[in-house]
Amino acid sequence: MDANLKMVVIFDGSAYFGWQWQPNGVSVQEKIEEALKHLTGKRIVLEGSSRTDTGVHALGMVASFKWPKKNMLIADLKKALNALLPEDIRVQNIKKMAPDFHARFSAKGKIYRYRILNAPISDPFRRKMVWYIYQKLDVRLMRRAAKCFVGKKDFSSVAANPGYKRTTMVRHIKRCQVRTRGDEIYIEVEADGFLYKMVRTIVGTLVQVGLGKRDVFSVKELIASKDRRLAGKTAPAQGLYLIQVKY
Amino acid sequence: MDANLKMVVIFDGSAYFGWQWQPNGVSVQEKIEEALKHLTGKRIVLEGSSRTDTGVHALGMVASFKWPKKNMLIADLKKALNALLPEDIRVQNIKKMAPDFHARFSAKGKIYRYRILNAPISDPFRRKMVWYIYQKLDVRLMRRAAKCFVGKKDFSSVAANPGYKRTTMVRHIKRCQVRTRGDEIYIEVEADGFLYKMVRTIVGTLVQVGLGKRDVFSVKELIASKDRRLAGKTAPAQGLYLIQVKY
Repeated sequence: MDANLKMVVIFDGSAYFGWQWQPNGVSVQEKIEEALKHLTGKRIVLEGSSRTDTGVHALGMVASFKWPKKNMLIADLKKALNALLPEDIRVQNIKKMAPDFHARFSAKGKIYRYRILNAPISDPFRRKMVWYIYQKLDVRLMRRAAKCFVGKKDFSSVAANPGYKRTTMVRHIKRCQVRTRGDEIYIEVEADGFLYKMVRTIVGTLVQVGLGKRDVFSVKELIASKDRRLAGKTAPAQGLYLIQVKY
Repeated sequence: MDANLKMVVIFDGSAYFGWQWQPNGVSVQEKIEEALKHLTGKRIVLEGSSRTDTGVHALGMVASFKWPKKNMLIADLKKALNALLPEDIRVQNIKKMAPDFHARFSAKGKIYRYRILNAPISDPFRRKMVWYIYQKLDVRLMRRAAKCFVGKKDFSSVAANPGYKRTTMVRHIKRCQVRTRGDEIYIEVEADGFLYKMVRTIVGTLVQVGLGKRDVFSVKELIASKDRRLAGKTAPAQGLYLIQVKY
């Protein structure tokens, strides 16, 4: 039987149409599957923990896959993949798992981080890694508003395509934290699962609060309304990082 | 009379053929002069403190120029330039100077920083900002070797084209410091002036020491020899930053 492996991947998403295979653009998954094919001569399918949108980054994307070459050391597989992959994708870790482990179905939770650069001048070196906002944001107010999102709730109001309800829109946000780090504001959201564009819509809404364009009370109302039209604009993809998948 | 202005510029050099105007490629100087022309309708020439090679970055490049529009506020000029410039170039500061100030001729010293990422895996987000070295470097030995470069010496051994001696090859290195910062090694060199590719050749030589490929004594011999062929390979441009020009 093939080994069941778990792979942790770091990538700069700037150049990719997200994680998942796409007919009309290059995805991270495609790049890694190409490298695996180069090593084995076979098509090996990666099961990703998440899709991630175009331009979104990852510090801890997880994928699982069946590995036929059992006599190759896992440390060597990691080295071989990193030698074949473009520099904007790195395999951080590979581990052997029980046969029933699946990157998506076994996931218990995920943590996303959103980075906002809030400074008088933008930074050439971080231009593709943060959302640059010139106007001073009130972090204290954002922190208060962030707390409104914590809990097990219907998050239709902060999901794209809320009409497309095949399944429940209820998710459990365990943590929605706003903190400063130097000239950046980090917004970290931990939940059992995420709806489409959920973090970026939460961030867009919190930025409205930080700019004084809406108050904390309106955030409570927004969530209760389940109406996406009342939320802030979706924040740009380039500030978003999948940082951890929990199992 | 036109005002004499001093401008401090930050740029990610990845996309440019260095600071100075080039016939066959786009330079940072050209981009800023284009923006100035857009604002004034006139060709305004920037005098840069340094040339900087293709791919080299700057956190504190300085340029001086004559400014004809005396009724425009300097704060507004900075804003207008940053609105016109591409995101990988930012004007950090503009200041009015005495008429005889000149970015190059008035300079008393410069500080360069070189960033090496020394870690088991390279980092997708810093791939164009550091020199990635996989093998563990011995920082203690590099530090000792770095001290050999300090002082007023003939630096022919670490300059490109040492045969092309129009002027003296003597420079005064005041500081040549090796320090760690997280998973990076910073090499900072401060001198009254620099020869062509001098910092990158010093770095290439110190890396040989860090890898155990040459000893500290050989660095002393190298400097005494004035022979470029005995030095290490020139380190790649992407790790080098002009961080400050002193006046």
